Amino acid sequence: MQSGGSGRGLRCCRVHRVPMRDPGDTSSIAALIDSGAVEPASIVAILGKTEGNGCVNDFTRQYAVNALQRLLAGYLGTTPEEVGRKVAMVMSGGTEGGLSPHFVLICVEAAADAARWPKALAAGVAFTRKLEPEELGRMAQVEATAEAVRTAMIAAGIDDPADVHYVQVKCPLLTSERVADARARGRTVATHDTYHSMALSRAASALGVALALEELSGTVAEAAIGRDMSLWSARASTSAGVELTRNEVMVLGNSARWAGNLVIGHAVMRDPIDLPAVNAALETVGLAPRGQLDAAQQARVAAVLAKAEPPRSGLIRGCRHIMLDDSDIQATRHARAVVGGVIAGVVGRTDIFVSGGAEHQGPDGGGPIAVIARRG
Amino acid sequence: MQSGGSGRGLRCCRVHRVPMRDPGDTSSIAALIDSGAVEPASIVAILGKTEGNGCVNDFTRQYAVNALQRLLAGYLGTTPEEVGRKVAMVMSGGTEGGLSPHFVLICVEAAADAARWPKALAAGVAFTRKLEPEELGRMAQVEATAEAVRTAMIAAGIDDPADVHYVQVKCPLLTSERVADARARGRTVATHDTYHSMALSRAASALGVALALEELSGTVAEAAIGRDMSLWSARASTSAGVELTRNEVMVLGNSARWAGNLVIGHAVMRDPIDLPAVNAALETVGLAPRGQLDAAQQARVAAVLAKAEPPRSGLIRGCRHIMLDDSDIQATRHARAVVGGVIAGVVGRTDIFVSGGAEHQGPDGGGPIAVIARRG
Amino acid sequence: MQSGGSGRGLRCCRVHRVPMRDPGDTSSIAALIDSGAVEPASIVAILGKTEGNGCVNDFTRQYAVNALQRLLAGYLGTTPEEVGRKVAMVMSGGTEGGLSPHFVLICVEAAADAARWPKALAAGVAFTRKLEPEELGRMAQVEATAEAVRTAMIAAGIDDPADVHYVQVKCPLLTSERVADARARGRTVATHDTYHSMALSRAASALGVALALEELSGTVAEAAIGRDMSLWSARASTSAGVELTRNEVMVLGNSARWAGNLVIGHAVMRDPIDLPAVNAALETVGLAPRGQLDAAQQARVAAVLAKAEPPRSGLIRGCRHIMLDDSDIQATRHARAVVGGVIAGVVGRTDIFVSGGAEHQGPDGGGPIAVIARRG
Amino acid sequence: MQSGGSGRGLRCCRVHRVPMRDPGDTSSIAALIDSGAVEPASIVAILGKTEGNGCVNDFTRQYAVNALQRLLAGYLGTTPEEVGRKVAMVMSGGTEGGLSPHFVLICVEAAADAARWPKALAAGVAFTRKLEPEELGRMAQVEATAEAVRTAMIAAGIDDPADVHYVQVKCPLLTSERVADARARGRTVATHDTYHSMALSRAASALGVALALEELSGTVAEAAIGRDMSLWSARASTSAGVELTRNEVMVLGNSARWAGNLVIGHAVMRDPIDLPAVNAALETVGLAPRGQLDAAQQARVAAVLAKAEPPRSGLIRGCRHIMLDDSDIQATRHARAVVGGVIAGVVGRTDIFVSGGAEHQGPDGGGPIAVIARRG
Repeated sequence: MQSGGSGRGLRCCRVHRVPMRDPGDTSSIAALIDSGAVEPASIVAILGKTEGNGCVNDFTRQYAVNALQRLLAGYLGTTPEEVGRKVAMVMSGGTEGGLSPHFVLICVEAAADAARWPKALAAGVAFTRKLEPEELGRMAQVEATAEAVRTAMIAAGIDDPADVHYVQVKCPLLTSERVADARARGRTVATHDTYHSMALSRAASALGVALALEELSGTVAEAAIGRDMSLWSARASTSAGVELTRNEVMVLGNSARWAGNLVIGHAVMRDPIDLPAVNAALETVGLAPRGQLDAAQQARVAAVLAKAEPPRSGLIRGCRHIMLDDSDIQATRHARAVVGGVIAGVVGRTDIFVSGGAEHQGPDGGGPIAVIARRG
Repeated sequence: MQSGGSGRGLRCCRVHRVPMRDPGDTSSIAALIDSGAVEPASIVAILGKTEGNGCVNDFTRQYAVNALQRLLAGYLGTTPEEVGRKVAMVMSGGTEGGLSPHFVLICVEAAADAARWPKALAAGVAFTRKLEPEELGRMAQVEATAEAVRTAMIAAGIDDPADVHYVQVKCPLLTSERVADARARGRTVATHDTYHSMALSRAASALGVALALEELSGTVAEAAIGRDMSLWSARASTSAGVELTRNEVMVLGNSARWAGNLVIGHAVMRDPIDLPAVNAALETVGLAPRGQLDAAQQARVAAVLAKAEPPRSGLIRGCRHIMLDDSDIQATRHARAVVGGVIAGVVGRTDIFVSGGAEHQGPDGGGPIAVIARRG
Repeated sequence: MQSGGSGRGLRCCRVHRVPMRDPGDTSSIAALIDSGAVEPASIVAILGKTEGNGCVNDFTRQYAVNALQRLLAGYLGTTPEEVGRKVAMVMSGGTEGGLSPHFVLICVEAAADAARWPKALAAGVAFTRKLEPEELGRMAQVEATAEAVRTAMIAAGIDDPADVHYVQVKCPLLTSERVADARARGRTVATHDTYHSMALSRAASALGVALALEELSGTVAEAAIGRDMSLWSARASTSAGVELTRNEVMVLGNSARWAGNLVIGHAVMRDPIDLPAVNAALETVGLAPRGQLDAAQQARVAAVLAKAEPPRSGLIRGCRHIMLDDSDIQATRHARAVVGGVIAGVVGRTDIFVSGGAEHQGPDGGGPIAVIARRG
Repeated sequence: MQSGGSGRGLRCCRVHRVPMRDPGDTSSIAALIDSGAVEPASIVAILGKTEGNGCVNDFTRQYAVNALQRLLAGYLGTTPEEVGRKVAMVMSGGTEGGLSPHFVLICVEAAADAARWPKALAAGVAFTRKLEPEELGRMAQVEATAEAVRTAMIAAGIDDPADVHYVQVKCPLLTSERVADARARGRTVATHDTYHSMALSRAASALGVALALEELSGTVAEAAIGRDMSLWSARASTSAGVELTRNEVMVLGNSARWAGNLVIGHAVMRDPIDLPAVNAALETVGLAPRGQLDAAQQARVAAVLAKAEPPRSGLIRGCRHIMLDDSDIQATRHARAVVGGVIAGVVGRTDIFVSGGAEHQGPDGGGPIAVIARRG
């Protein structure tokens, strides 16, 4: 199954970054549509950074999804449910530190008179088949994800895995009902802890990306899922959601079959304060950070997409961090705050998509960082 | 009244930065003393970054002070109370994001065979007279602070205000008892809100520093205290503590009357993501950041001292921040996290002293940053 | 303007209490409607206890309102906006301690063959005119609220203020835009602190209730609003919402013009642990608590509506509480938790509507408690 | 090994409950000693309810212990360390809701002219041998604890387990160092998760109490520790502390060998709102709660000691609670708040010792409640 690109004719990917006043506020997207800048039917994905806690009781994500579906249903003359099936909605809670709540719209249009470069930003979406509860956090999910990534690459017109720079995966989790369903059919599940199942599902999905992008050779052992943190993808960004029963995959890369002046690149932060990796990511798309990007270069940055995670060692370069011992503020909130600060210092902006929970997404304590920029 | 330097003979200021495992853990200081690296009687001040919330119910600060006083009393053969009178203890709560709990020891010794440079790091301590409750947050406190800064400069052997780069002030606050005391004597107080009195005392103290360092010309109006945020010092760092009845002032600067290979400089962050200001501060002490300091340059950084504050506008460069609307995490905690991330990205270390509450200390939303470094 | 009761013929008020799985979950209301137990058009008000923090960044309230409006719009064949105009939605965030997220539906029907008693539960809704920004937190709001309460009493068929036992008011607050609007017209506002404006609007509204119910004689001075806590209503429950430009008032009481086996009564908690007041409230509706209500009596309780607030003295019966000094958990969250515990202990249920922010609603640190019960 | 009671002659146990202004404030204990009301050498144990979060980064407990040891060392002419060996210090963090920070002193004196009753409050303290890391959370700890309880009963002069009403146990936990130590000796440990080791150590200790008090017959299976929640003690209260390498046990009960007018009793709360159990506990010591204790009866209550825990089912009597899904406030904080409210409503006081983490201490979601009272 595939969508997000017919493969016929030259296409163009456009990216719009707009603010939100609260998680239910979609007025800046409405304004884009009303002004003619965005054709509602061209929207294939919306990423959102909302101001919840990014943890279990973060309802800002679904609140934003509901508002977005209601908005687009109005413009498209359809139902919110149908919008849900057509447009990938990836909400990430948590704007700690100085991060700014915002939406990033990914739109795909016919290229028309878009600028031509050897390669341009390309997007492709694909889905796995329905995953059974007993498959989550296990090799079945790894392999199904890898296959969906390959399908999405085809949808995006990308042949070489090296041309993929960001793979967003939304994946299911276990609930008590799903565990019971598996049991009733005589199956075991990877974990009975539903919260832990989110980590395992993210982990299996990330390993699937790593296999599809040939970041890992051969295959991985099921026992490595969520455990062997030496295995990781430099381009996966995965998140689990209770509303899903299959993995949803969006591939972003550069392709000769697309037009437009956007380009994407990436690097990997080795730890939360890896500023050189931020610079490296910017350099892959033609930007030349010397300290902080100047105003002209800032204006060329269309989106920054990063993952953050507390180092399990309890240390950052030998100095103790307190993220994992803080019973007042969740560890991932601390991690987003510091990574957000490091990136914002370089980029000169705070509307950066930093999300938490980076199992097998970059090394322990680090994470991938992708940048979409306009060519100079 | 003055202390912290006799003015006779050439002195040398040494700075030691050591970790703490918890707010009551002074073992790394004990190890320094036991190894002979630090002479207990040479310690004139200890700054500490503890892992509390930095707000009203942060007891980690006094817990650390108690532990430090007990430790030094043992080495010095005196009482904890006497240590309290001799050694300035400045604890700042809050190691949000990736910040690392640590102590910074300021030691003053006879220069002996210390390295000679045209100027070297100099420290001086002074106190105001006892301040009456009705004087807090008012011009009396501003003026008394300014006078104490001038006295501390003399103690530090610094003639030119331009040679001062960091002024730490600890100041009193109002309690219900103190308000009642003022009333009983027929006096009014600046505020009846004891929490707000902390801000006003910090504000008045910062303006006192600004006057002494000639950052403001002439004088300031009492009505400006805590209100006119266009008035600020680039070098003040003030904090209020319930245990005080007078202002305690420590001046750090460079002086020709001191020896040693340490030097201090400063810059001012205009907002929480002002990375260029971090670079500028590092350059004032001879470091040359290109991205992140390399290992050799990192090793030369003896201490980084910065202030952080949420911009009152609700915006960072036009993008909304949520610090002031978050009822789960206090605004100053967010501010320390992001500023800590920006600085740690450049310096490559997380044991940085970032404290909150920066009234009249740098512009709204920004704050001073001072760096002490070893000469290359 | 009035609604919620035609005044013609005998009416009957029904109350349904149902759980929610999350703030966007309205499935238990849908089930009530689908089963025929509730006629959608009969719903005049929905109170909801959602699991947000009940403070500034609590988006669970509006999330629930959106979901409720969408649900009822479907059943009523109208728009969510129209539902918003017809059905009072009072969401209160915060289910601290053991409180359980739930909805309370207030439905008004023709009496038909409803049980007849001398008096029965009656409901009436009314609205003030649009309130200008400069009127909020001032006598204009007090007086407009009082008038709306009298109108709602007429709508409810209640002549004697003593027959009113609960008055829910939703009221506007000041935003930066509204302050600017007032200024542009040469007006001043009660406060420039938008958060504080919520307290002043609640306070003025509560005093309006107190005047209408003749709990205060004559009038009140504008200077008393939000300050003189010796003035209070035993029956007001007010909350501020940014979406409003007028006060919305719902009166619940007992009236001879209504049928049905529900009755309402109230008492006032003098402090957060005033268990005798809980007992007294239950006794007013014919229940006889001896320790905890037994199962038969529990089943007769249709709804409990209470207000909670931290005592400003910092003490509960001479013992220090820490609610006002806790920078990790907001004071109103502590207050709801303890009051919820006291009430749940007596009632034997946790789906109790305890809301925070009780200015002039009961004495300082206390608050009204109303009980709706089925006759035995 | 035993202490806390010579076994010779008639003894008397006195209990003093005093407030603290902050976790480092011992002035109310100093006042008791200075007034002659308490003989410092008679203090065998101090329980404290401090205002930290009661979780991992709660430093208020050790801060209070340090302050208490320093205070008593001064009065006793010894070192803080020696006080630590002689006086059991049981600090429990968390005064959520309306709970009030306070200390409870347990003092043992010669009976002299103390009142004589058939039985009176008796206290006994005992310690296990040093427990190896590999013994924690396993049968070795269960059995060693059971033996120490029996020893403490002898110290307390209590023959019949039915006369024991409260057993406080402080127990060790695993740290990375201790795990490594076990490994180096070729041993396995019960868990590699150091946080989880706290729960297992509490669990094993509680089962040890249950065996010693014959609440469980025969023995328990090692696999039941921390898992089979149908096994529990109605009188154990256990807490883990990093500073310990053995279990410290304090038994409180009634004995004919003791004098004085204090008596202790207990009951078990079946869930967090089990008000009838609170009443039952009060009745065991001769109090007759009818609603809330009247002033005369309140004055007879010397101490209330209870355990609180979130029900793992996610429900309280069929209604959903949110304790386990709240990523902003830890579950045990919610549990203490609601249980504190239920008890305070009945007792009419908020200086109640409610602590969290009740594995095998009462049924799931419930916990023991003990009351010490003066005879009427």
